[in-house]
Amino acid sequence: MKLIDVLKKRTSIRKYSDREVSEELLNELLEAAGRTQTMGNLQLYSVVVTRDAAMKEKLSPAHFNQPMVKAAPVVLTICADFNRTTEWCRNRSADPGYDNMLSFINAASDALLYTQTFCCLAEESGLGVCYLGTTVYMPGMIIDALRLPRLVMPVATITVGWPDEHPAQSDRLPLASFVHQETYSNYTPQRIDEFYTPKENLPENKHFVEINNKETLAQIFTDIRYTRKDNEALSEVFIETLKKQGFHL
Amino acid sequence: MKLIDVLKKRTSIRKYSDREVSEELLNELLEAAGRTQTMGNLQLYSVVVTRDAAMKEKLSPAHFNQPMVKAAPVVLTICADFNRTTEWCRNRSADPGYDNMLSFINAASDALLYTQTFCCLAEESGLGVCYLGTTVYMPGMIIDALRLPRLVMPVATITVGWPDEHPAQSDRLPLASFVHQETYSNYTPQRIDEFYTPKENLPENKHFVEINNKETLAQIFTDIRYTRKDNEALSEVFIETLKKQGFHL
Repeated sequence: MKLIDVLKKRTSIRKYSDREVSEELLNELLEAAGRTQTMGNLQLYSVVVTRDAAMKEKLSPAHFNQPMVKAAPVVLTICADFNRTTEWCRNRSADPGYDNMLSFINAASDALLYTQTFCCLAEESGLGVCYLGTTVYMPGMIIDALRLPRLVMPVATITVGWPDEHPAQSDRLPLASFVHQETYSNYTPQRIDEFYTPKENLPENKHFVEINNKETLAQIFTDIRYTRKDNEALSEVFIETLKKQGFHL
Repeated sequence: MKLIDVLKKRTSIRKYSDREVSEELLNELLEAAGRTQTMGNLQLYSVVVTRDAAMKEKLSPAHFNQPMVKAAPVVLTICADFNRTTEWCRNRSADPGYDNMLSFINAASDALLYTQTFCCLAEESGLGVCYLGTTVYMPGMIIDALRLPRLVMPVATITVGWPDEHPAQSDRLPLASFVHQETYSNYTPQRIDEFYTPKENLPENKHFVEINNKETLAQIFTDIRYTRKDNEALSEVFIETLKKQGFHL
């Protein structure tokens, strides 16, 4: 099956069968993902592979104890990594200047592009993956658990295994809502209605609004899932952790 | 051909034939890439499609006049976008709190994952792409050219077209250099030698060091390509632009 057909049917997978994810297959996918474009061919990322139950136990609270962390055969933590390149420079009479915001953004970009190639390859192979957005909420706990040195910052976590569920596919916004021709077309109330009403009318979303005693689906996001208060507190933590890892802002 | 086989042979493509990239094909790929995992199913990205010659002319200096920008039939600028979600919230009696660092990281992650799914799909279709790392160097010029509003920040640019060259594939570091088992294994001088000597010994890299009168390949990066001075100046610009776009640090 072509990737485009895999994608058209894809869903995130949170329940995995007992079937092993062989080291051979995992390494083949991790290596092929290394063909992803990368800044100056520096490959500014590292992947930490977690298979050990005790290590999953340590990582679990950093991901708000989402059950996939302990249940998945493999957990991958993908990091923006300027440490390896910096060590290379230091060993080669070169003076590295990669302890800054731009270098973090460069390395995070490399790491996220790598991550997504890996996800496409894994899903093409029939594996199921789930992306844990929690990685950037509690980076300090992950840094401690995986012993990440200076200039290494976790930016993505993926749980990987053979699917043991067939969840319904979630909706997506229409193409016209996120693609702009030549210049950005801002959103009028009419366009917002056009793009978001189908999502708001889905029975599961209506139900979600009702059981949470909210007026609108948007309030589920602003008042419960991603609140200003949490975002601002976690922004502070993220910035402090970035600095602690040596990326000056 | 499976994606893994496409990837194993892939190279970035900087020269494109005259063959048109049809709107139908482009939209099919942009839409399928929308199946990429996304935070809270919010799809925190936008894509601005550039086909117009005058718009390419405007974008070109932001990308240091790399010839692909004007030569490619299609240029895609992918943006971290919390504007659309914020507008949705405002139209739905919800108070959005997405003008902070964490929200930028969330949206940039969504945008970069989307970008890479698109690249995999494009290459599977036989298209050639080139990722322009310059996007984060001069974001202000891109913001002006594409009229990006508050809470929209460009994070990736891709040139797209049918290949008119067959460049040699570049090297990559060995898998063991960037994959760590259970915890991060820091790099001893011996491991640096093991991982980087093959790269340093490539004839093109030896030649590059020689013609630039440098002692080591690493010095090409620290003294010429990505210097501390440039990185620090561009970090300031990036942070100022982020703030100007409404993401408070």
